[in-house]
Amino acid sequence: MSEAETRSSGPRLHGRPEAIVALLRRRTGLLESSAGDDALAEVDAELQARLDELHPADLADVLEALPLEDRLAVWQRVKSDQDGEILLEVSDSVRESLIADMDDREILAAVEPLDADELADLVDDLPTEVLPELMASLDAQERERVQAAMSYEDDQVGALMDFDMVTIREDISLEVVLRYLRRFDELPAQTDKLFVVNNESVLTGVLPLHWLLVNSPDKMVHEIMAPDVNTFRPEDDAYDVAQAFERYDLVTAPVVDANMHLIGRIAVDAMLDFIREESETEALSRGGLREEEDIFASVWKSVRNRWAWLAINLVTAFIASRVIGLFEHSIEKLVALATLMPIVAGIGGNSGNQTITMIVRAMALEQVGVSQVRRLWRKELGVALFNGVVWGGAIGVVAYLLYGSASLGIVMTAAMTLNLLLAAFMGVGIPMLMVKLGRDPALGSSVLITAVTDSGGFFIFLGLATLFLL
Amino acid sequence: MSEAETRSSGPRLHGRPEAIVALLRRRTGLLESSAGDDALAEVDAELQARLDELHPADLADVLEALPLEDRLAVWQRVKSDQDGEILLEVSDSVRESLIADMDDREILAAVEPLDADELADLVDDLPTEVLPELMASLDAQERERVQAAMSYEDDQVGALMDFDMVTIREDISLEVVLRYLRRFDELPAQTDKLFVVNNESVLTGVLPLHWLLVNSPDKMVHEIMAPDVNTFRPEDDAYDVAQAFERYDLVTAPVVDANMHLIGRIAVDAMLDFIREESETEALSRGGLREEEDIFASVWKSVRNRWAWLAINLVTAFIASRVIGLFEHSIEKLVALATLMPIVAGIGGNSGNQTITMIVRAMALEQVGVSQVRRLWRKELGVALFNGVVWGGAIGVVAYLLYGSASLGIVMTAAMTLNLLLAAFMGVGIPMLMVKLGRDPALGSSVLITAVTDSGGFFIFLGLATLFLL
Repeated sequence: MSEAETRSSGPRLHGRPEAIVALLRRRTGLLESSAGDDALAEVDAELQARLDELHPADLADVLEALPLEDRLAVWQRVKSDQDGEILLEVSDSVRESLIADMDDREILAAVEPLDADELADLVDDLPTEVLPELMASLDAQERERVQAAMSYEDDQVGALMDFDMVTIREDISLEVVLRYLRRFDELPAQTDKLFVVNNESVLTGVLPLHWLLVNSPDKMVHEIMAPDVNTFRPEDDAYDVAQAFERYDLVTAPVVDANMHLIGRIAVDAMLDFIREESETEALSRGGLREEEDIFASVWKSVRNRWAWLAINLVTAFIASRVIGLFEHSIEKLVALATLMPIVAGIGGNSGNQTITMIVRAMALEQVGVSQVRRLWRKELGVALFNGVVWGGAIGVVAYLLYGSASLGIVMTAAMTLNLLLAAFMGVGIPMLMVKLGRDPALGSSVLITAVTDSGGFFIFLGLATLFLL
Repeated sequence: MSEAETRSSGPRLHGRPEAIVALLRRRTGLLESSAGDDALAEVDAELQARLDELHPADLADVLEALPLEDRLAVWQRVKSDQDGEILLEVSDSVRESLIADMDDREILAAVEPLDADELADLVDDLPTEVLPELMASLDAQERERVQAAMSYEDDQVGALMDFDMVTIREDISLEVVLRYLRRFDELPAQTDKLFVVNNESVLTGVLPLHWLLVNSPDKMVHEIMAPDVNTFRPEDDAYDVAQAFERYDLVTAPVVDANMHLIGRIAVDAMLDFIREESETEALSRGGLREEEDIFASVWKSVRNRWAWLAINLVTAFIASRVIGLFEHSIEKLVALATLMPIVAGIGGNSGNQTITMIVRAMALEQVGVSQVRRLWRKELGVALFNGVVWGGAIGVVAYLLYGSASLGIVMTAAMTLNLLLAAFMGVGIPMLMVKLGRDPALGSSVLITAVTDSGGFFIFLGLATLFLL
């Protein structure tokens, strides 16, 4: 059991940041009113006591929830032996603000207690001048591990693995294994199995801890170990590995190289973090945010974080606007076109986003490949035709009632149907094409489909109107 | 170690559905060409061999990736002792298609080997006529557990817990515990700790398995157990519990009632599934899909799954259209307004979605509460003002160059700035109001903000133009 579990008594963290903010406010109030030192000392003591009892992950949360000045006030009071753990837990932007507040000596002291895999996660965010001294303080194996972990992408197993494994030989008895384990004060967190290796440190199997308990101590390791086991490579895609953890209910798994040499281990806590981060990144990028934003960041930082997406959107909106510009003569003659055109574009965008969301998801789950494109087109075009006739028909009737022109209603229905068909065609086609080009089908898919259905919708509706109504 | 781990040798599942589809195709081809029975038998044997070696979770994946006719062909060939596990793993819509293909006898045989918590997950999808017989086949404790698990919402701990716990007394020695464990053939999957209870089955602590290994066998349980432990209640929100698992790197945790009576356990595999499903549901609802869609569902089923969102979108688009309708006279006089207005609305929508995404996320992580609304408004309005002046200025210059009217350019810049300010104001305000009203701030937030910035953008731009240009 980790220290964390024995220290904290439940998940009910609600209100903790607020309680700490309230204390900080009271403290500022006392300072300003120049109240007695006793009152101040009391508040300080309570603040310190509250901070001391928090787990580093909870402290990280508190720090993220505080505006900069309060954040640094709390950061100064945090026990220095937790500094490294907290830096690991906070978001990138908050980490930056905390590190900016530390001098080189404090930084080195904070990160030295960390494991190699944890150091590798932090190194990129540390000031370059501390790196030589930090690296010099590590032994050769540690240094090698840090460099190995840093050589992988964030979404590869190599960047997520740790080195907290317990290895045993296969030619010993469980009795000997039990005696060996008793020499540890504590096994590494989340250890659910021991890794069995031979003389060349090639992985030959695994021994779940509880098999040690249910089997007789005089059995040999090789008799009871599981020889055929889920192993991963450092270069494996973490997304696939997370699926394997979910599928096979794994807690830890060995990481090996091409020759089955044991390199490290991957644990379910890293997978939980990874899945959570993935879904956050997805949510952020859909919203057009480049990275997680410190909610109390300056206006200028927020502007930089968001500008790329806005610029893309400006370009697509401008293109759509120029499409309308082609038909200004038609709009001058029949102003109802200007009123009705956003409906055609909007519904097309909505419907196209539905299709593309579903296809991208099915692709991520590998339920569908490029080979099935025809089948999917058939289905999605069918849905679009149905919706076009029904919803487009309804809107056509409304247009007729508003403007008293049956032909305007018919053009409206036809344009909606055609734009929905376009949305369905591109909603299937865009992700398929992305995959064929070796790109991530999720990235920017929503922007692309909306751009197509906006410009397409305006073109189809105004074009049909120009042909048939004027 | 679970059966799964020993059976499957890695996460590399790519191509498995395709391989099985290819075999099904070859089989159909052979049947049509009335080739020799030998060839057919060979294909059948290979198909069966491939299916037999798959883990239920992988089979579930294969079934989801197949069109209906192939899916049922594979389903018939799956070993019946895996049926229940597979039904648990597939998505709701695919489960429906599989159950529709089974008679009552097959269904009962499939679900009877399942645990109470698994049964509770399936019961809602089973035909009502099998339920009496199913319930009668359970013993009293099992029946009670199924009913208990069914009484909780999908996002409460009670619906996610299982009953696979090993309990011990605190007044015995580790020696006795070890002897007790040796009577098991296998401990429940993911067991990382034993739960310590007293005579009244009140939880008094936990004993991590590996403490059994590193401590001397003659110590007593109460000497070494961790008394202060993360416990959860069945009515706890699973989202909070998932955060606790992530924070404290838990593998399992006890579930207790208000009097600390041990009820069940919650394990990290259930948490992984929950987080994954949460992020999927979020992605789907953003796309306007009511539920996970069987990618090979009929056109009609897809239409039903998607109609609600389309209908909402139609209403908001119609409202925006009527706002434009108010200014038809202005557009008749100056048709450039019709061309430029979608830019104002589009950029406002994009920017508002950025703000609301960030706020909703920070609220979910409890980094920000209603008390900070002023601070957030100040910052977001600052960002909006900056973007309005810069991007709005750029677009104003373009409008001037296109139409040769400086006043049109100024109106464009002013309208963009005002709509961005509106987007920022509502982007903070909408989720805050939702929380005050006790609603989920994520639900429909994107639709709402887009509706506001569309109608608002048209109104602001056309209104300003009517006032100052005509």
